[in-house]
Amino acid sequence: MPQFLSTTDPDFEARFAAILSAKREDSPDVDHVVAEIIADVRTRGDAAVLELTAKFDRLDLTAQSMRFTPEEIAAECAKVDNADRAALQLAADRIRAYHSRQMPEDAQWTDPDGATLGWRWTPVSAAGLYVPGGTASYPSSVLMNAIPAKVAGVQRLAIVVPTPDGVTNPLVLMAAKIAGVDEIYRIGGAQAIAALAYGTETIAPVDKITGPGNAFVAAAKRRVFGKVGIDMIAGPSEILVIADKDNDPDWIALDLLSQAEHDASAQSILITDDAAFGQAVAAAVDKRLETLERRAIAGASWRDFGAIITVRDFDEAVRLSDRIAPEHLELCTADADALSAKITHAGAIFIGGWTPEAIGDYIGGPNHVLPTARSARFSSGLSVMDFIKRTTLSRMTPDALAAIGPAAERLAISESLEAHGLSVRARLDRLNRGEP
Amino acid sequence: MPQFLSTTDPDFEARFAAILSAKREDSPDVDHVVAEIIADVRTRGDAAVLELTAKFDRLDLTAQSMRFTPEEIAAECAKVDNADRAALQLAADRIRAYHSRQMPEDAQWTDPDGATLGWRWTPVSAAGLYVPGGTASYPSSVLMNAIPAKVAGVQRLAIVVPTPDGVTNPLVLMAAKIAGVDEIYRIGGAQAIAALAYGTETIAPVDKITGPGNAFVAAAKRRVFGKVGIDMIAGPSEILVIADKDNDPDWIALDLLSQAEHDASAQSILITDDAAFGQAVAAAVDKRLETLERRAIAGASWRDFGAIITVRDFDEAVRLSDRIAPEHLELCTADADALSAKITHAGAIFIGGWTPEAIGDYIGGPNHVLPTARSARFSSGLSVMDFIKRTTLSRMTPDALAAIGPAAERLAISESLEAHGLSVRARLDRLNRGEP
Repeated sequence: MPQFLSTTDPDFEARFAAILSAKREDSPDVDHVVAEIIADVRTRGDAAVLELTAKFDRLDLTAQSMRFTPEEIAAECAKVDNADRAALQLAADRIRAYHSRQMPEDAQWTDPDGATLGWRWTPVSAAGLYVPGGTASYPSSVLMNAIPAKVAGVQRLAIVVPTPDGVTNPLVLMAAKIAGVDEIYRIGGAQAIAALAYGTETIAPVDKITGPGNAFVAAAKRRVFGKVGIDMIAGPSEILVIADKDNDPDWIALDLLSQAEHDASAQSILITDDAAFGQAVAAAVDKRLETLERRAIAGASWRDFGAIITVRDFDEAVRLSDRIAPEHLELCTADADALSAKITHAGAIFIGGWTPEAIGDYIGGPNHVLPTARSARFSSGLSVMDFIKRTTLSRMTPDALAAIGPAAERLAISESLEAHGLSVRARLDRLNRGEP
Repeated sequence: MPQFLSTTDPDFEARFAAILSAKREDSPDVDHVVAEIIADVRTRGDAAVLELTAKFDRLDLTAQSMRFTPEEIAAECAKVDNADRAALQLAADRIRAYHSRQMPEDAQWTDPDGATLGWRWTPVSAAGLYVPGGTASYPSSVLMNAIPAKVAGVQRLAIVVPTPDGVTNPLVLMAAKIAGVDEIYRIGGAQAIAALAYGTETIAPVDKITGPGNAFVAAAKRRVFGKVGIDMIAGPSEILVIADKDNDPDWIALDLLSQAEHDASAQSILITDDAAFGQAVAAAVDKRLETLERRAIAGASWRDFGAIITVRDFDEAVRLSDRIAPEHLELCTADADALSAKITHAGAIFIGGWTPEAIGDYIGGPNHVLPTARSARFSSGLSVMDFIKRTTLSRMTPDALAAIGPAAERLAISESLEAHGLSVRARLDRLNRGEP
């Protein structure tokens, strides 16, 4: 049973605060092991990666066979069903169209003092994408990570994907091919992150690493951060649905379950202004849980972290939603657009009952890599911005320096940074002497 | 003596690689102490902060006197010289004008399938800014951190600034007032970071923390990351100057020294196509080091980490510069604009001999918080973007869902996420039944 709350309950605030601060994840402490693996790969390169792959993935590779050849990729892609291929292609096209609009503009202008200022965006040169093997090997994640990188203009995009016991997911290779990935390696774990960050004889180092992974991968990403850029460390998935009684309870139940089925630590919350509707959704969830393939996982998530909250009105719902800062927010109310405009903190908003969150996981166009664990208060989902960086530009003329230089000199002196001040003063002195 | 290199030297590549990988910073391991301080502040709130402030800053405060009152701020600001005030105001105006241009646009469009997509930018609600006390207490840093936050629309901006033995820097308070900071607290160290991240009885928690600090502050920021957002962890400052022989060697020497004087771990590098000019700059540096106030620091930096590299031509300089990915890049050549366009990785570029880097530290307009330690390969300087986040928006119509929903269902099934597929299928089934 999920929790049932109402904002009219006397203990509501305490119970809601408990939901907000619930620790849903118990990451094993693998930091020490990961530190050793990274040091080993830095020292011994390919040899270390190959040994660790033999040990963890039960797979004997050579420096040569670490990387998928074009023929191997083609052979795997040939196994993909036409309908799956078409679905991946449609998803890729839509994701590319959405992310292409995110490219920001360069700017340059000259201000009244004669200073020319601006900025220029440039892509990261090389990026690496971690793709989990086994049950959480999602081709959709390949598209969601690789396409923004390619739209950004990343020249070299390498994927690492473990193939335990040699088992490959053809859809992952198909997605990589559609997305334009340049290199694919059959390695995983902390050793793959280390190889991408520091390079080996076979794998050139990259500048940025993105993509989901297990506790070892997450710990390795934290450790190489600084040497390379990383994306966020994602927590368990979350959905908040705000719905009125004019919805089909089964639709809302399925939307809640579509996050719950990801992970026993996932969290699905319904906020409604109608307690009876909340009960109807709970009943629909229970009915679906009788037959759902992943009912063990989804059931545990719903039981341990699910909640149904009854509010007085939807303005109250907005305030609660902003405190949750949900990864996914579904608005199934009559005035969903107006409600959306009132929301401040959310990773992605799905507006209206015809927009199940699953559309956003696969095919809508926006990215499905989104801030979890309330971090939508201060961060955004993956985008083209994660694969570009900005260089600021300044150009002074002698007149511009004469106009604003004295203030810079003054501030440098006030901060006891004499050379800063002198570097301006030496130039102003030449101007004062009338030299050009 | 700095290192002298030439790209024609047989051992150039090895020596250049050594410069790239030189470890310039020896951070003390304070992580254990910091973890205890954070835990203490989380448990005991104000009481812990007050005790730690008495211990580390030799300052007895109460919950009441932790925060500067408007009267105290006014009294400190009254001590500021008119010329300093005017310089700060000019800097603030120029920084605000530059950063105001960074605000990105919201977007919304309807695609041919009838799906309405887009995104919306919203500010972080509350931000905290760490300002060091003592010798590294820079009013310019207050402006550079606070103004982007205010331009972004951050409603509540709190500063923490330690005042060891009760000593306050009036210019810091003046800068805070000019920038529109809302709250200023007389606390510092890891305890101040913990108070901002978790809140105390007196200090409400924030969502994002930026600003420089010592090893304790940096370790605390790393630890609270995830609970709140943080800016980058800055390393020692760096400058790369690319200059031809038509420059005044003394100007270039001062530009190199203006980074070297920051920190004995700072790094200043000159690349020139004229070895004799390189020697002339080295001589000018030595001459300035005879009298410079901070000659002990600047001299150590120049001796240990300084380098003068002679290249065959400036295209070679561009390639070396991109491998360095400098925080600050000064281009003092005849064709500086053209050279700038060839650079891919740099935090900030200063174009032409009339643009000393110090202009960018204070008054140019662009931010002086920039990526160090080669991280300009994958990250950008501080900007309005650090204080806003993007929510993606999707709205399907029944027709749009009919057009793209089947592909989403197909991909969900291929990933064994049944509820995802069913959440789409349930809606498609109603459409197929002809219900609206």
